[in-house]
Amino acid sequence: MAENAVFIGNKPVMNYVLAVLTQFNSGAKEVAIKARGKAISRAVDVAEIVRKRFLPDVEVKKIDITTEKIQGEQGVANVSAIEIVLYRKD
Amino acid sequence: MAENAVFIGNKPVMNYVLAVLTQFNSGAKEVAIKARGKAISRAVDVAEIVRKRFLPDVEVKKIDITTEKIQGEQGVANVSAIEIVLYRKD
Repeated sequence: MAENAVFIGNKPVMNYVLAVLTQFNSGAKEVAIKARGKAISRAVDVAEIVRKRFLPDVEVKKIDITTEKIQGEQGVANVSAIEIVLYRKD
Repeated sequence: MAENAVFIGNKPVMNYVLAVLTQFNSGAKEVAIKARGKAISRAVDVAEIVRKRFLPDVEVKKIDITTEKIQGEQGVANVSAIEIVLYRKD
C-alpha cells in the first residue's frame, strides 16, 4: 500500500507532477495518484509525465478503477475513480 | 490480447457501454476499451458501468497507460492514452 498520495484536482498538470516528484525526492518508494471524474485524464497525464520526462526509473505498480458514491445536491451520484500507484525501482 | 476493441470518443457514455455489451453478447471473452486525452475519464466510466450495472461477471484484466505522439497542426504533441481490458469469467 502506498503511504504517499497525490489527489488530482483542477490545477495545472505540472502542479501535480511537482507534488509527485517532491514525494519521490523525499525518499518515497511509492506514490499513489488518485482522481475522480473528469480529473482521471489528468491523473494519467501526471503519471506519464513523471515517468517519461522526469523519473525513468519509476514504473506503474498497479492501476485500480472503482466507483465511488458522492453525496451531491441532487442526492447520491456515482463517480468513477482511479488510483495509479507509481514505484521507484532500487 | 483482446481481439475486440471499443474506441472512446465524444459521444454519450451509454453509446460506448452498449458497444461493449454488444461485443460480450456476441461471444467475446475480452473487450479492450481504448481512449486518449480527455476521453480517458469516459473510458473509465464505460468500464465501471459495464461491470457494476450490466455484467457483474466481467472483470478488469489489465489497465495500461501510455503516451502517444499525435501529429497536430502545431507539430507533434504528446497525448496520454489508456487501454482497459475487460474479460468475462467462465
